[in-house]
Amino acid sequence: METPDTPASAAPTTSVADLDWSAASADPRYRAAVVDLLGALAYGELAAFERLAEDAKLAPGLADKAALARMAAAEFQHFEQLTERLRGIDEEPTAAMEPFAAPLDEFHRLTAPSDWLEGLVKAYVGDAIAADFYREVASRLDSDTRSLVLGVLDDTGHASFAVEKVRSAIAADPRLGGRLALWARRLMGEALSQAQRVVADRDALSTMLVGGVADGFDLAEIGRMFSRITEAHTKRMAALDLSA
Amino acid sequence: METPDTPASAAPTTSVADLDWSAASADPRYRAAVVDLLGALAYGELAAFERLAEDAKLAPGLADKAALARMAAAEFQHFEQLTERLRGIDEEPTAAMEPFAAPLDEFHRLTAPSDWLEGLVKAYVGDAIAADFYREVASRLDSDTRSLVLGVLDDTGHASFAVEKVRSAIAADPRLGGRLALWARRLMGEALSQAQRVVADRDALSTMLVGGVADGFDLAEIGRMFSRITEAHTKRMAALDLSA
Repeated sequence: METPDTPASAAPTTSVADLDWSAASADPRYRAAVVDLLGALAYGELAAFERLAEDAKLAPGLADKAALARMAAAEFQHFEQLTERLRGIDEEPTAAMEPFAAPLDEFHRLTAPSDWLEGLVKAYVGDAIAADFYREVASRLDSDTRSLVLGVLDDTGHASFAVEKVRSAIAADPRLGGRLALWARRLMGEALSQAQRVVADRDALSTMLVGGVADGFDLAEIGRMFSRITEAHTKRMAALDLSA
Repeated sequence: METPDTPASAAPTTSVADLDWSAASADPRYRAAVVDLLGALAYGELAAFERLAEDAKLAPGLADKAALARMAAAEFQHFEQLTERLRGIDEEPTAAMEPFAAPLDEFHRLTAPSDWLEGLVKAYVGDAIAADFYREVASRLDSDTRSLVLGVLDDTGHASFAVEKVRSAIAADPRLGGRLALWARRLMGEALSQAQRVVADRDALSTMLVGGVADGFDLAEIGRMFSRITEAHTKRMAALDLSA
């Protein structure tokens, strides 16, 4: 009788989630996927840092500028944690990040906010999409990598700052709502389009993301992950009085 | 017989350096001067954060970009410490920083680096001038404010990064030396010119800076402080193979 107390929904084989890094990384495909993941997250944090610091210049006042700078500094701390882990597993952070620089730079280039409110919506949407993605991927990770990723995800209270500012701006001038809703939609569209590019380029990462074990990966499952993230985005935009 | 054991060089009256904040701040002029100082330092750190984050974009590679972002994040931590102290003494940080925003913004506007090496020289020179200034002013401060200021000054190892990069760039292309020496001279000139503007505008701060107690302040002593800082700058530039 095999594992009679396993719920029907659980995977029958040992999941990587039950292993720690030293056990899980014995599989070179898994190892390569995690190096990719940490490299992508690290570059994402560095690019977010740069962009938030840049957007801080759009702030209407000193307190708002400081709040955005605080978000940027928090992203940099995440960057440090991620690159430290890469060095800890004998990977050169620069080499791990390099493949993700072009798509992330392109995303930021295509979505440079034209004013303070667009910057806030971008910070909020970007943070939230990143958090959803981190949570999705956490369950596919060994225990050590998972606790790093969930630690980096740790709520920093940034979201509530942006939500409050955007809500009160829309309350004061309801016409803003339409423009910002369009902007949020564009952000999500550009994010998905760059994510597709990464999926197409990085086999090991993509396979791991959907819990694949065979060669190649399940494109439909990737699609489902993207839809879950898009749905969560749509709900958040509604909460912000922006119909996405 | 009055205080026979006081060395001839020591001030005959109790120095503010022997008091803590609660004793020293009973003098409203001293209190106003410290609020000005903390406001100026805080805005300086915030502006430095923004500028370093911006200059990180000029980095030739990911490792260099991360190094500059690290310097920026450290400045932001200093900003947080300074604004926290302001709140701790019931002063609104924004109000305290406001008078210094224009001169500091103007300094950065006039000294936007045109390439990576100019950015590094600026980060190095700016950091060093700030450190000299912090050290000059520390001896005029009550014990609590002094330990805050010296803590913020705490060496972060940034200087050696910039020095190493600039030195090796000049070794590889000696013609760079002339251009960067000119640049360093311009940085110092613009810094002094904005500092003069602050001195002219902020009486209480300027009086405290030179240890004045009477109404008004000793302009000659301010001049001597500026020359000490300029001399230290000149020596550092020589060490960097830049004759300033």
